[in-house]
Amino acid sequence: MRGHQNVTMTIRVGVIGTGNIGTSHARDLTFAVAGSSVSVVYDFDEARAGVVADELGARAVATAAELIDADDVDAVLIASPDDFHAEQAMMTLAAGKPMLCEKPLAPVESDALSILEAEVALGRQLIMMGFMRRFDPGYLSLKAELAPDGIGDPLVVHQIHRNLSAPYGLASDRTLTNMVIHEFDIDRWLLDEEYANVTVLTGKSGPLTPAGEHDPMLVILQTASGVLVEVEAFVNTQVGYGVECRVLGSTGEAVMGDGSFITRARAGSRGTDIPEQWLARFQDAYRLQLQGWIDYLRRGGPMPGASAWDGYVATVVANRAIAALHSGQREVIELPERPALYA
Amino acid sequence: MRGHQNVTMTIRVGVIGTGNIGTSHARDLTFAVAGSSVSVVYDFDEARAGVVADELGARAVATAAELIDADDVDAVLIASPDDFHAEQAMMTLAAGKPMLCEKPLAPVESDALSILEAEVALGRQLIMMGFMRRFDPGYLSLKAELAPDGIGDPLVVHQIHRNLSAPYGLASDRTLTNMVIHEFDIDRWLLDEEYANVTVLTGKSGPLTPAGEHDPMLVILQTASGVLVEVEAFVNTQVGYGVECRVLGSTGEAVMGDGSFITRARAGSRGTDIPEQWLARFQDAYRLQLQGWIDYLRRGGPMPGASAWDGYVATVVANRAIAALHSGQREVIELPERPALYA
Amino acid sequence: MRGHQNVTMTIRVGVIGTGNIGTSHARDLTFAVAGSSVSVVYDFDEARAGVVADELGARAVATAAELIDADDVDAVLIASPDDFHAEQAMMTLAAGKPMLCEKPLAPVESDALSILEAEVALGRQLIMMGFMRRFDPGYLSLKAELAPDGIGDPLVVHQIHRNLSAPYGLASDRTLTNMVIHEFDIDRWLLDEEYANVTVLTGKSGPLTPAGEHDPMLVILQTASGVLVEVEAFVNTQVGYGVECRVLGSTGEAVMGDGSFITRARAGSRGTDIPEQWLARFQDAYRLQLQGWIDYLRRGGPMPGASAWDGYVATVVANRAIAALHSGQREVIELPERPALYA
Amino acid sequence: MRGHQNVTMTIRVGVIGTGNIGTSHARDLTFAVAGSSVSVVYDFDEARAGVVADELGARAVATAAELIDADDVDAVLIASPDDFHAEQAMMTLAAGKPMLCEKPLAPVESDALSILEAEVALGRQLIMMGFMRRFDPGYLSLKAELAPDGIGDPLVVHQIHRNLSAPYGLASDRTLTNMVIHEFDIDRWLLDEEYANVTVLTGKSGPLTPAGEHDPMLVILQTASGVLVEVEAFVNTQVGYGVECRVLGSTGEAVMGDGSFITRARAGSRGTDIPEQWLARFQDAYRLQLQGWIDYLRRGGPMPGASAWDGYVATVVANRAIAALHSGQREVIELPERPALYA
Repeated sequence: MRGHQNVTMTIRVGVIGTGNIGTSHARDLTFAVAGSSVSVVYDFDEARAGVVADELGARAVATAAELIDADDVDAVLIASPDDFHAEQAMMTLAAGKPMLCEKPLAPVESDALSILEAEVALGRQLIMMGFMRRFDPGYLSLKAELAPDGIGDPLVVHQIHRNLSAPYGLASDRTLTNMVIHEFDIDRWLLDEEYANVTVLTGKSGPLTPAGEHDPMLVILQTASGVLVEVEAFVNTQVGYGVECRVLGSTGEAVMGDGSFITRARAGSRGTDIPEQWLARFQDAYRLQLQGWIDYLRRGGPMPGASAWDGYVATVVANRAIAALHSGQREVIELPERPALYA
Repeated sequence: MRGHQNVTMTIRVGVIGTGNIGTSHARDLTFAVAGSSVSVVYDFDEARAGVVADELGARAVATAAELIDADDVDAVLIASPDDFHAEQAMMTLAAGKPMLCEKPLAPVESDALSILEAEVALGRQLIMMGFMRRFDPGYLSLKAELAPDGIGDPLVVHQIHRNLSAPYGLASDRTLTNMVIHEFDIDRWLLDEEYANVTVLTGKSGPLTPAGEHDPMLVILQTASGVLVEVEAFVNTQVGYGVECRVLGSTGEAVMGDGSFITRARAGSRGTDIPEQWLARFQDAYRLQLQGWIDYLRRGGPMPGASAWDGYVATVVANRAIAALHSGQREVIELPERPALYA
Repeated sequence: MRGHQNVTMTIRVGVIGTGNIGTSHARDLTFAVAGSSVSVVYDFDEARAGVVADELGARAVATAAELIDADDVDAVLIASPDDFHAEQAMMTLAAGKPMLCEKPLAPVESDALSILEAEVALGRQLIMMGFMRRFDPGYLSLKAELAPDGIGDPLVVHQIHRNLSAPYGLASDRTLTNMVIHEFDIDRWLLDEEYANVTVLTGKSGPLTPAGEHDPMLVILQTASGVLVEVEAFVNTQVGYGVECRVLGSTGEAVMGDGSFITRARAGSRGTDIPEQWLARFQDAYRLQLQGWIDYLRRGGPMPGASAWDGYVATVVANRAIAALHSGQREVIELPERPALYA
Repeated sequence: MRGHQNVTMTIRVGVIGTGNIGTSHARDLTFAVAGSSVSVVYDFDEARAGVVADELGARAVATAAELIDADDVDAVLIASPDDFHAEQAMMTLAAGKPMLCEKPLAPVESDALSILEAEVALGRQLIMMGFMRRFDPGYLSLKAELAPDGIGDPLVVHQIHRNLSAPYGLASDRTLTNMVIHEFDIDRWLLDEEYANVTVLTGKSGPLTPAGEHDPMLVILQTASGVLVEVEAFVNTQVGYGVECRVLGSTGEAVMGDGSFITRARAGSRGTDIPEQWLARFQDAYRLQLQGWIDYLRRGGPMPGASAWDGYVATVVANRAIAALHSGQREVIELPERPALYA
């Protein structure tokens, strides 16, 4: 059981980088995560940082260093551009504070190694990497299928990773360090072993691909035990975003389609689980209802859920249905006028 | 923009009823919802209330009245057995405190009316009903399809609501007030109008149905404008839980299968949206990652996400992949030994 | 084993009615069915009959009676408008010839009874009804799921039957005799019992529905044993054609979606069968290949399938792949110029 | 329009090889294909050939040469073991008769070349290859998606080809010449261009793989224009048979799942077509109904479709439904006793 002694403690987070992903994280920490607040934000674009600070009741500071060293920052979230991660992670390590670092740890291998060595020298883990697929219900379900009594020994992994368009220009090297890096992480997590080699196959490219670059690419990895991992990475699909992953095992297959439902093939049949409980199906609805209620109590505005009027009508209908069940007839439903309070 | 003045305010909730659903709500309010805590719990089973209080850093009290009147209770969550909802809602109204009341408002129509009248007399809305489907991403997506440029004017709604087995005995009347009441609420929310009549069709029952009861039932509702709503309710499927809803419109159809993905049929084609953004696909993963990180910072234990070692390996692989892209060859991946810190 | 004595016998069919469906049947009997030919055709539109006769090597006659009595007509296919079925079936019975009669046997109940009584008086079955769903792989698979070890005892059947638009005007009575009649037949075939009662529910109609008519309609049938059958019939969907059928049983459910694949739900899981054999998957391809080859041999024209060149190339590629398997390298594929014969 | 002069001509086929596939073809030519009969069969197992001949009203001969030269053989179907195809194709070419040759044309490249050169020397096409996927509704629909206004320029093809188990031993070379040869053919047909190179990747093998062999394998082909074709071939899945193919284009994707329905992704949406006509959905049911009727007329036995009784009942129900529509009430359905004729 979780001890209650820290339940009321609030972690004050400093957020470095208030672009799309940094702002999204900062809002989540304030409005959707239990036990955290955002105390300080920093962005090289001061105005952008100021707007976010204002919305979240935080303050903006002028440098990343100032944020990292601030007394009211218990932990740091690094969501700056890729090339700044290494330096900011090193500074946060030096300050002895825990951090969540967006991927990649660093685009350059030697920088990544320096950070690793610094943390090892420190002797305790402060860095958590933002490979969020490890928290995705889809991937978690997929990994659950890889249990010994599941699809057997994994033999081949097929993956698809597609974007609508190239948000940050289309350099093939960057596609590997910034986009396919998700597969580089998630497949070794899925298979629980390291890679032995990698090949990148290029062929015909889509019409929006700059000269000298390649899109799509097929990346083929092989793990130490010989499992083949095949990744199709296509940045400029012009179609939309999509991630799929299927694992072929020695006695079955598990498929994570474009969402979190896993299809499983075993001898003679292919299918999905049917849950026993309604809580699983509506788990998120229950949480969102509670959050909606709390937000409403904290910030006012119109009631976000069903009112007493709604509750009353449902009871009336249920009682008319009971009458219909017993009469075998169609029963008329009559309601009083809706009170103005519920207009 | 949301004002920051109340961002740091915490709503202290008193939870009445610590059975399955009440305990689930209490844990969510503590561990998964931003801005709330559970201060007091009550259950007629004192031992059960005590265990939950202990886990959540709350205190247990001896009566619902004591909870409702407590100074450190800003809002009340009513998750007691159905027959107690009315009395506890009246007491909470009398105390002038906001409440989230699990469905139904009351099984008996006159009780529901009394509560409604009391709130109207009070002149302000304190009651929010726990019809959580209104917060379900699936139903929200379905309702979004009913926009004027969507499937046209709704004509027929088909619904399926199935349970694995009968958790509280199988009285058909109770199936209507406790289970189908979800459809009674969600369909008028979907269609945004009231019902005019209701019929309940019974036929052949499953083998586990007690004599004199009916399972499955078909409930047919008709709204004021004439829309037909057909609900199959089957408590003892022996198969599992499942909820489906499809709305036939004058120019198309929207289908919410057993999950939140909506399939839409319009002239000549049937399909689903492809998102433009990765945030939508992994929205929940990002939130869960942040919550996992904060929980880890608040409560300790093993790091729940990727480590610096994982970040380092991903960078190494990405760099080997870049080499493979440029060489056109298979490139070997070599890693140093994993430091003991990351064992 | 099927005796070979009649294998070379050809059944000469007379086709009454050369509208869409009659012409389609006549072509199938000539070009796609083993052991039949079309010898005589009749249509009240003489020119239309002449065109079909010319295409199929048949002759057109001036009356249905002449067709029925012709010496070179072994069997009659009745594909005339609904209101003529009764008279033509009676004439064919009188001639003692077998017939395939498109549905309905007759729109008027007393006419249908007269035909039934005439055949019973004759003492042998000459009439086969064109309820072709009984031959549909989808419905056949669905019926196979209703076996004792399948989904248990059927309790509820949900059906959807939709058209793009109303091809013959939209009279609700006619929707029942001409369109829903398919469900009237197929559900008693599925359940293997007769109906005890029927209800038709009407509500809000689509925008193309004439005044006084209803579209969509919900037809509710109940069988002698109590099974509830619910049919949504919608003629003017403006969306497209679609047929779905799902049977809820006491221990599971079988779903025939918009096609022939059956999804089955049993305790805890939902899924489809995976075939053991490739023949099942490509059964139709094999038959179509043979028919294409025979048609080509009978009628000339370009070869419809793969050529010797295609066979040669496949062998070359397979041999290069074997080389690649053994070398572990990428192997170049070189082909001679394609001979002009295969241009 | 198809000329009627040859409509009544019957092609008499000689079938070489009466194993599973040869017997299946011979039955189809007799019972399911319009315009053909099987006159002569040959198998090295004389007893097996005799049984098939007896069933189909054909005669069995002692050698392939005797079959090829027989006066009553207009065309030859070669379904012998792979290693005999070349010799029998050469003999059939020498006899100047058309043939359908099961794949491969020959396992050995030089043999395939000899046949090709012989047909070119002859100056006319007599050989059609049994690459039946070219006739599969699934692949035909997939190819239709590759039109200029479809998914754009093909860039990558992903294919899966799996068997339940290894029916003829598991030699990896043979997997390539006998199984993957289907993909070698169908992908150049899909893409309408030749391959430039091929690579075969092997990794971890399943538990039933003999030492020195590889299963699964990834075969990577590249076409002349650069399209990458990736094929997963897995013989011993222990799961079942399955074929999937998806083509990634420059502006969309087309997916042929395990069946013939194509899912298409274009900008912002993913989906399938909804047909306008019922004929497409029930095309096969109509043909099978006609074939069933003709078979019944030729060979007797119980009526395979709906009877006059069934037609009568459907009309009664339709008329009761019309009454229900007009009364707004539930109408009882009463039927006379079913006549013994329809027992």
